[in-house]
Amino acid sequence: MKLSFGSDNHSGIHPQILESIKQASSNFAPAYGDDAYTQEVEQLFKTEFGPNASVFFVFNGTGANVLCLKALTQSYHSIICADSSHIQLDECGAPERFTGCKLIDIPTPDGKLTPDMVKTELYGFGDQHHAQPKVISISQSTEFGTVYTPQEIAALAELAHQHHMYLHVDGSRLANAAAFSGVSFKGLITDTGVDALSFGGTKNGMLLGEAVVFLRPELAENFRFIRKQAMQLFSKSRFIAAQYIAYFHEQLWKQTASHANMMAAYMASRLKEVSEVTITHKVESNAIFATLPRNLCDKLLEKHLFYIWDEDICQVRLMCSFSTTKEDIDIFISDLKSLI
Amino acid sequence: MKLSFGSDNHSGIHPQILESIKQASSNFAPAYGDDAYTQEVEQLFKTEFGPNASVFFVFNGTGANVLCLKALTQSYHSIICADSSHIQLDECGAPERFTGCKLIDIPTPDGKLTPDMVKTELYGFGDQHHAQPKVISISQSTEFGTVYTPQEIAALAELAHQHHMYLHVDGSRLANAAAFSGVSFKGLITDTGVDALSFGGTKNGMLLGEAVVFLRPELAENFRFIRKQAMQLFSKSRFIAAQYIAYFHEQLWKQTASHANMMAAYMASRLKEVSEVTITHKVESNAIFATLPRNLCDKLLEKHLFYIWDEDICQVRLMCSFSTTKEDIDIFISDLKSLI
Amino acid sequence: MKLSFGSDNHSGIHPQILESIKQASSNFAPAYGDDAYTQEVEQLFKTEFGPNASVFFVFNGTGANVLCLKALTQSYHSIICADSSHIQLDECGAPERFTGCKLIDIPTPDGKLTPDMVKTELYGFGDQHHAQPKVISISQSTEFGTVYTPQEIAALAELAHQHHMYLHVDGSRLANAAAFSGVSFKGLITDTGVDALSFGGTKNGMLLGEAVVFLRPELAENFRFIRKQAMQLFSKSRFIAAQYIAYFHEQLWKQTASHANMMAAYMASRLKEVSEVTITHKVESNAIFATLPRNLCDKLLEKHLFYIWDEDICQVRLMCSFSTTKEDIDIFISDLKSLI
Amino acid sequence: MKLSFGSDNHSGIHPQILESIKQASSNFAPAYGDDAYTQEVEQLFKTEFGPNASVFFVFNGTGANVLCLKALTQSYHSIICADSSHIQLDECGAPERFTGCKLIDIPTPDGKLTPDMVKTELYGFGDQHHAQPKVISISQSTEFGTVYTPQEIAALAELAHQHHMYLHVDGSRLANAAAFSGVSFKGLITDTGVDALSFGGTKNGMLLGEAVVFLRPELAENFRFIRKQAMQLFSKSRFIAAQYIAYFHEQLWKQTASHANMMAAYMASRLKEVSEVTITHKVESNAIFATLPRNLCDKLLEKHLFYIWDEDICQVRLMCSFSTTKEDIDIFISDLKSLI
Repeated sequence: MKLSFGSDNHSGIHPQILESIKQASSNFAPAYGDDAYTQEVEQLFKTEFGPNASVFFVFNGTGANVLCLKALTQSYHSIICADSSHIQLDECGAPERFTGCKLIDIPTPDGKLTPDMVKTELYGFGDQHHAQPKVISISQSTEFGTVYTPQEIAALAELAHQHHMYLHVDGSRLANAAAFSGVSFKGLITDTGVDALSFGGTKNGMLLGEAVVFLRPELAENFRFIRKQAMQLFSKSRFIAAQYIAYFHEQLWKQTASHANMMAAYMASRLKEVSEVTITHKVESNAIFATLPRNLCDKLLEKHLFYIWDEDICQVRLMCSFSTTKEDIDIFISDLKSLI
Repeated sequence: MKLSFGSDNHSGIHPQILESIKQASSNFAPAYGDDAYTQEVEQLFKTEFGPNASVFFVFNGTGANVLCLKALTQSYHSIICADSSHIQLDECGAPERFTGCKLIDIPTPDGKLTPDMVKTELYGFGDQHHAQPKVISISQSTEFGTVYTPQEIAALAELAHQHHMYLHVDGSRLANAAAFSGVSFKGLITDTGVDALSFGGTKNGMLLGEAVVFLRPELAENFRFIRKQAMQLFSKSRFIAAQYIAYFHEQLWKQTASHANMMAAYMASRLKEVSEVTITHKVESNAIFATLPRNLCDKLLEKHLFYIWDEDICQVRLMCSFSTTKEDIDIFISDLKSLI
Repeated sequence: MKLSFGSDNHSGIHPQILESIKQASSNFAPAYGDDAYTQEVEQLFKTEFGPNASVFFVFNGTGANVLCLKALTQSYHSIICADSSHIQLDECGAPERFTGCKLIDIPTPDGKLTPDMVKTELYGFGDQHHAQPKVISISQSTEFGTVYTPQEIAALAELAHQHHMYLHVDGSRLANAAAFSGVSFKGLITDTGVDALSFGGTKNGMLLGEAVVFLRPELAENFRFIRKQAMQLFSKSRFIAAQYIAYFHEQLWKQTASHANMMAAYMASRLKEVSEVTITHKVESNAIFATLPRNLCDKLLEKHLFYIWDEDICQVRLMCSFSTTKEDIDIFISDLKSLI
Repeated sequence: MKLSFGSDNHSGIHPQILESIKQASSNFAPAYGDDAYTQEVEQLFKTEFGPNASVFFVFNGTGANVLCLKALTQSYHSIICADSSHIQLDECGAPERFTGCKLIDIPTPDGKLTPDMVKTELYGFGDQHHAQPKVISISQSTEFGTVYTPQEIAALAELAHQHHMYLHVDGSRLANAAAFSGVSFKGLITDTGVDALSFGGTKNGMLLGEAVVFLRPELAENFRFIRKQAMQLFSKSRFIAAQYIAYFHEQLWKQTASHANMMAAYMASRLKEVSEVTITHKVESNAIFATLPRNLCDKLLEKHLFYIWDEDICQVRLMCSFSTTKEDIDIFISDLKSLI
């Protein structure tokens, strides 16, 4: 396949990350995280997120989300999320299956929760019949490509903590949000009061690599047992660690995420040339959501890979990644125009 | 670290496998198994295991074992295994947690179950108070490095099927068993009547790569939902597929496994030179189990990485892998002799 | 406590039911359902629901609902219900915890699902990321006291079966619905195509007694293991059976449920005398929902036990039961009027 | 059925307990434990077990055991028990299903664990691959009818606490143990350091009634949510409470349990008259275990209800209860003798 706007996980491995894997393969190393690479990365996360941060590698985004939520809850708790969130829509019930918790999903115009929305579900504390609200879970950037400001996150964290709840961030695209907002990981996460973070790398140039990051030391205490029992402990852990070493080196993550964001901005600007297309969400990271006539969409799907997000209104999602090029976009726009 | 006999997962990635990953990274590809690499591997597994075989990639050996068992059971079933098995000892309760089943562990002299041993637990069928026996689970090669003959496996499969039960094989080291016995995967698994297989690659030269293999089509029917909900679906699936393509190409797996086995045999022959050391299990694959005086063991541990299996009798495990060399072993033996 | 309109489970045990318990206690009897009383009841249920019906006693309504749902699902399924349903609101996440399924809740004006409402959630079949819709669950009578017609239930059953799904009925107040509609249990459940039923007795005069009723024999096949593992198998099972024997004898259930319904109708008629009170749902069974001024409500709560259903609009629920009397209602209305 | 030695749950309801249910039924009462009966019983348990004790009613012994264990564990823990224990043998995997924990079963000569037996499984603390030992669970009296002394229990509690573990007692027959040993509930449980107790009533004259008793206040803190989500919250809770009120009144429990124990002692003394019968365990509570020739056993089973415990050696269990009479036993012995 030459081109794909289907997802940022349709791209390959960034060459510097692949090279780092190769370097790490030259020797024997202890398994299950007792290697020097993993230990080096643990320090890098403290540099990025502050000294109270602790990191645990897992295999995929679903694993990171579900294990964060498990660490924050007992099974009689509930988890409040946007109705467009990955944990609600795209994980085949994995959060319910592994945590036992009820998910409370809230409609939003743009994928972003606000304190006022969340407050409508903050009731029934102490009532034994009612699953007890315990976590607010947001995505940064959201599934619609929108980005929370640090102030917006801080407001949700404050609300959560007022009710003895936690704030979780699904950061499978945190790099894109950080690149867009120009705020550091620490500024977006640690300083806003986030309690637990799913920190993704796979969608931004890694082979595979997701991390659970706790901002409160007590959450990390027994987490290695949770991870192992959840089938998420990697024997050759150094090969995730080596990727994160390359990822943080000279802010490679920022370079790749900024590129993806720029490509999305460029795509959005080019789509505006086409009057049949309407962009439906702010383009703040590497996703474009747009509506177009159904027959045009169908013809375009014969030439390009992308997904229809909402069949009813023919809303499509176009994703850019570190490996998307201007030329790719120009071909896409040219094909689009030729179909009209 | 220069040397390790700690585990076969202390070794790195075989160069041909790493090269295959690199090749697969050059383009965009659909995610979640819809790529050409994954589809090619699905055919390769049919070549190796017969036309009824189906394969699903997962992330690690625990994932492969637990998901096989989940596909074979309802939560009110029980699973019969050796008391030395990985599912009983080394997975932090993951099988119980995810399947809800009771594990029935049976002592064995050498890690191998026999029909007579299993029969002692085949009772209570139909009694609602009794977890219903449903799976016999064996490891090939076993945790002690011993290897079942095809006849031994077939006898267990027959017993299982007589009781409407299934036979599962934990094949995290199936390549070593196949290389030792000179029997094909099909001869060891499909032809003996095995129902589900955890097929490992990580311990034999892969970066990460484990597969669930079903030998009965009906077991595969809804398995992709089980896998997703179990957090074991990999987005960039092509990078496991690419490894298996290299693994099967000109039987790379056999070359690497045979080498590991040969190194273990060489290690065993050299250890026999040392009268303080007693080899305690047949060396049939890539593991050596041996007892030695405790103070000798402690001194050796200052120079080399290996694990004490049984503290009470100071029994140690020495593992060889595709990257173990004769020189490594000679250094180990020389260090051992110098300590006496 | 003299009076309560708090819930129909605030009432005691019907004398005939208590007498039946006493009779059953005179002898030894085998435990766990092997007694003659339980076997007699199994026949009574076939008489009521048809020859394909099978019955299993459980302890409470939550148990009946969760175990029905468990029998109908795998953990990667989803369950569609009204957002006012007991399984969504009042069981502390028990359905998610025990089945692993996602609950999809749908807003309704009156607690009743329609095929058009349900269809909005019937998508994503075969998509491994999407929890697979498998059960439509309704309450008869609903949590708002409204009652489905047989035609309405049949339409939902047909929709379910078209999609290889099941229809479950939470019948904790099925007797009230049957008494209201004048349709037999068979007419409401078996003939409409319902697959599984939670059949309650506790709210209609029993000490404790709920039953799981399957209308398809294959659902019952391994259910006794599910029940036992779910901690819902009663040793002295005869004491639930004896209650059901009295319950079905000369349609005691109808007499008690009709009385409760009549009391609700009487309460509704009396409430209409009070202009400050607005009845908000059709009174079709034994519940009245009404709004009233908040300060009036607060004063009334000092004298009577009932629950505020919706704090925002001061909507209250008043429940009648087999033991509610006209005099009770007259006192309540008199107290209400005196407060204005 | 006239006679049964099958189980102490084959007996009916003690008349005083049934009368107490009847009394409690005369009025309305709030549900779910907010009634005066339940509140009275909470005080009675503090009288029996000391001021730190808290009590929660559940439906059955499996529920009491599983919910105690759930309150003491996280899913990555293990639970150490005798291989004859009810939680290991007779609950269809309910403990594993609901807690996610691994059960470690230990063979014993008489159903009683000792510190030395338990110590063999106290290893692997901190090893993420190893399910972490967290609970020692014993039965008092045991499944073989033997009774722990307070000193024996205290020794196990001390061992548990040394390892930051808990001691749980399955007391489905605690009354029989207390009656045998002449030690109060407080002396057997609170003063020995037990952390959580399943306190049974059903086998000693109740209709149904089991209680979870915590001896440490912190264990009770969120337990009501666990109970509700586990489907073990009873709406008409007063009807369990009323039974316990009668049970504790003038030590009815002691009268019924002592009677059952005496009947067992009498049965044992009579069985010694029959040389073909060998009593295999000490008769310390209300159970007799004995071996007898198989053909004799089969003939006796045609006339009497009792269970074969161990088919291989034809070991049977004979249970006495509060309603067993000397005449019942004389008939049994007479029938036995007539068959020889």
